Amino acid sequence: MRDPQPLDFYFDYISPYGWIAAELVGDLARRHGRQVVWRPFLLKATVVEVMGLPPILQTPLKGAYALHDVFRLARFHGLEIAANARLNFSSLLAARATIWVARSANHLIGDFVLMLYRRHWAEGDDISDEVVVLDVGAQLGLDVAALRAGVADPVIKSEFKAAVEAAIARGVFGSPTIIVDGEMFWGSDRLSQVSAWLETGGW
Amino acid sequence: MRDPQPLDFYFDYISPYGWIAAELVGDLARRHGRQVVWRPFLLKATVVEVMGLPPILQTPLKGAYALHDVFRLARFHGLEIAANARLNFSSLLAARATIWVARSANHLIGDFVLMLYRRHWAEGDDISDEVVVLDVGAQLGLDVAALRAGVADPVIKSEFKAAVEAAIARGVFGSPTIIVDGEMFWGSDRLSQVSAWLETGGW
Repeated sequence: MRDPQPLDFYFDYISPYGWIAAELVGDLARRHGRQVVWRPFLLKATVVEVMGLPPILQTPLKGAYALHDVFRLARFHGLEIAANARLNFSSLLAARATIWVARSANHLIGDFVLMLYRRHWAEGDDISDEVVVLDVGAQLGLDVAALRAGVADPVIKSEFKAAVEAAIARGVFGSPTIIVDGEMFWGSDRLSQVSAWLETGGW
Repeated sequence: MRDPQPLDFYFDYISPYGWIAAELVGDLARRHGRQVVWRPFLLKATVVEVMGLPPILQTPLKGAYALHDVFRLARFHGLEIAANARLNFSSLLAARATIWVARSANHLIGDFVLMLYRRHWAEGDDISDEVVVLDVGAQLGLDVAALRAGVADPVIKSEFKAAVEAAIARGVFGSPTIIVDGEMFWGSDRLSQVSAWLETGGW
């Protein structure tokens, strides 16, 4: 018997919905004996460039709603988004750092993703700042000089670019998106269906 | 003590997510001793005109996903969208008929909404066809000649137009949207939070 496939978890650090789901997906996967593959991408590439839409917070009506909804949703799950969390920032550095950790210290990838997410959304630090990203690496005992070089390495840059293109080719557009046994679910509100899919094999 | 406020249920018949929620919201409201006020609006007015977005099915990536997701979500809730259900149609006639029923036979409004929704999405009839709308009226014992005149009545037309404008003024943009005690929830996937909000008074 082959090992069961891992869950592909696509996310952008800019998405607090992605954070909420990231906090929940680890337990969900463990309950079903699955691993999580953490796959950063850029909403800018999907939403703005491929779909031709404005960023959600700049969308009339929906922007105001989403801002209210995501704070409420976090509290619903026992989380708290920091009042000073920066809503609009470049998540490129954090994403590249994640690609580097996946290559260099893959056993720490889940911790790295959650710690970065929490620094930004729960603690209100700005993870577009290299100092913060390197500090998370240091907390995990990573080689900080290597991480710093890694995020600027053309190999890492092109690996991330290819990863974003592969996500789009697979149909991924929103954060979070979870693919389980070839079935795609978009949104933190689909986690209960991901769980049901794992339980039942689909419907 | 005042009676508790009803749940405002905003929907567009063109939205199968609205149908799924319409099937669920009645029981939810009853469990919490609430009424439902059925408020049709037009996604064309919110999404296309106010938000400046393309219709969801014409949105790259998201369109293909939504089409898959909504069939899967219906099955998840024990419903089945007819394979021949027309995805793109004018829901204006059905909406105006709903406004007429709310004025003329308000005790039947919930049945009328569900029957229209089911005719289109479960049975594959086209509710942009007046014959179908009038047939639903007949099944409910409504005065069909009056309903037929009603949907063409300038008073009904302007009442619906005002209702759409009032929805937008309230921040409504997607179908379904539920407002409970002043708190807005968008999406059939927020029903469990609507229920929790009713249970707890908010968080």
